[in-house]
Amino acid sequence: MKVVVLSGGVGGARFTRGLLAHLGPGHEVTVVANTGDDLWLHGVRVCPDLDTLMYTLGGAVHEGQGWGRADESTRVSTDLAAYGLGWDWFTLGDLDLATCLARTELLRGGLPLSAATDRLAQRWDLGVRLLPMTDAEVETHARLADGTLLHFEEWWVRHHATLPAVGFEQVGLSGSVAAPGVVEALVSADVVVLPPSNPVVSVGTILAVPGVREAITSTPAPVVGVSPIIGGAPVRGMADACLTAIGVPTTASAVARHYGLRRTGGLLDAWVVDDADAASVPGLREHGLVCGATDTLMRDVASTARIAAFALDLVGPVPSAG
Amino acid sequence: MKVVVLSGGVGGARFTRGLLAHLGPGHEVTVVANTGDDLWLHGVRVCPDLDTLMYTLGGAVHEGQGWGRADESTRVSTDLAAYGLGWDWFTLGDLDLATCLARTELLRGGLPLSAATDRLAQRWDLGVRLLPMTDAEVETHARLADGTLLHFEEWWVRHHATLPAVGFEQVGLSGSVAAPGVVEALVSADVVVLPPSNPVVSVGTILAVPGVREAITSTPAPVVGVSPIIGGAPVRGMADACLTAIGVPTTASAVARHYGLRRTGGLLDAWVVDDADAASVPGLREHGLVCGATDTLMRDVASTARIAAFALDLVGPVPSAG
Repeated sequence: MKVVVLSGGVGGARFTRGLLAHLGPGHEVTVVANTGDDLWLHGVRVCPDLDTLMYTLGGAVHEGQGWGRADESTRVSTDLAAYGLGWDWFTLGDLDLATCLARTELLRGGLPLSAATDRLAQRWDLGVRLLPMTDAEVETHARLADGTLLHFEEWWVRHHATLPAVGFEQVGLSGSVAAPGVVEALVSADVVVLPPSNPVVSVGTILAVPGVREAITSTPAPVVGVSPIIGGAPVRGMADACLTAIGVPTTASAVARHYGLRRTGGLLDAWVVDDADAASVPGLREHGLVCGATDTLMRDVASTARIAAFALDLVGPVPSAG
Repeated sequence: MKVVVLSGGVGGARFTRGLLAHLGPGHEVTVVANTGDDLWLHGVRVCPDLDTLMYTLGGAVHEGQGWGRADESTRVSTDLAAYGLGWDWFTLGDLDLATCLARTELLRGGLPLSAATDRLAQRWDLGVRLLPMTDAEVETHARLADGTLLHFEEWWVRHHATLPAVGFEQVGLSGSVAAPGVVEALVSADVVVLPPSNPVVSVGTILAVPGVREAITSTPAPVVGVSPIIGGAPVRGMADACLTAIGVPTTASAVARHYGLRRTGGLLDAWVVDDADAASVPGLREHGLVCGATDTLMRDVASTARIAAFALDLVGPVPSAG
């Protein structure tokens, strides 16, 4: 079966790892990664979500923190700080830096991000086709109440999303084009999954790449989402601050309504909420969604595989491999 | 007293460290560094000679190898190699990389190399003013007998200068301008020193920056050089291969004649050879040079300080500090 996942970083990466464990071999999984948080740091191109996906699916992730490399060190960043340079709140480990340097070399050599990503992925056994949402550089800024714009990573990593944002501006997004393979994967998919990634700055950014939303609303494949909100709070990350910035309540139900029902112009056919939010299921079903509640906390690969199975079951039987 | 040193990497850096030990405080030493070996590596700007000078004078050099940082590691380059990328014959240690990343950030932020160098030098207590020869990017290539061009670092580091070169081509050199302060330092100097650096690709490259040779031939300061050749061989490095490429014999005497006598349009007033080459002194004196022989092997800072003292003594008494 052909599955397409629109993913941010940690949540989407962990979900995809569980999905692969559930599916087993013989299926074709394409992951379209958010690149709206990417940044140039010390002249090096950093792509947080692509790398979290690559490390998680490649078996190299730092399990404890969910991003970055296992057995990481900070020789370079510590020495860089001794020059008084850089953003001292953004730590790029030595091994993570190697990935970013490799990418930068490929980009400066003329490759588009999608080709550079493919080249980097050759090192790992990902079990998926990993695509950036676009080859264009997109830069996300949080707009504060006083009009100040902060680079998303500064707002997110440095200030832990504690400065109330009233919206996000994404330079380069509206003029971008989906990376090669993204639209093709969506329109030929058997199922499209919105994993429990940030619905605003991860999935929302991918959906805002011109052509992506249209490909999803027009694909014959069913679209199923898994709520990133459990009991009124994000499991990790700061999706609540992002939802608040765009005026969406931090509830599983509100996120589903924000994505919208596909047959009325939205995106979703089906929606998975946590058992803690089971009370919202009848209302969402009445709204027209196929909806179910289960334990959605991704404790490990096995529990995540069960969540993925539950989500796929909602939209029909899994075709056999191949 | 005001001293200007035209320096390559290891030899010039060690000589300058000895010079500072000899002079003590209160003198003004300007080092003009060769930047003709600089390169872009993985999108990062590497300046081998500037960094060797900075680490050596800043007390951070790897004493054993003469370049790079003490207590160095190769976490990043090892991981980068796992991607199958980069020049695997060029090792950039983690701490060295931090310097290069800091420089790259400053350059990409719009600073010229001279200002970036000044900014990096603030971390260290160099005791000199460190200037790149030019702010322009100069790229040196070795031309082989069959016409092939190799980047100098590839010829030097990868092939250990074993592929016979018939000359060097330096892209960007003839159109370059000396960095701010270089010509000013030379014309207001009390003495100009050509340390035992490579006379072809280090000192020779600096001299080829438009305006530098003219500043030296016209400065009222005496110019003294220290032979990098002892007993017909370079003490370290592969200056012999470079001299051969431009048709100059690898002898202390031939290098002096290559630099030329200042009052006949060349550069030198005085020349220091090793005791092993004492036999060449009468001939060079007859040629018009002030010339002396001493032990020129830079074993440590104290022995190097004595060599520097010997060189300065050849061109006159050292003025008092200030």
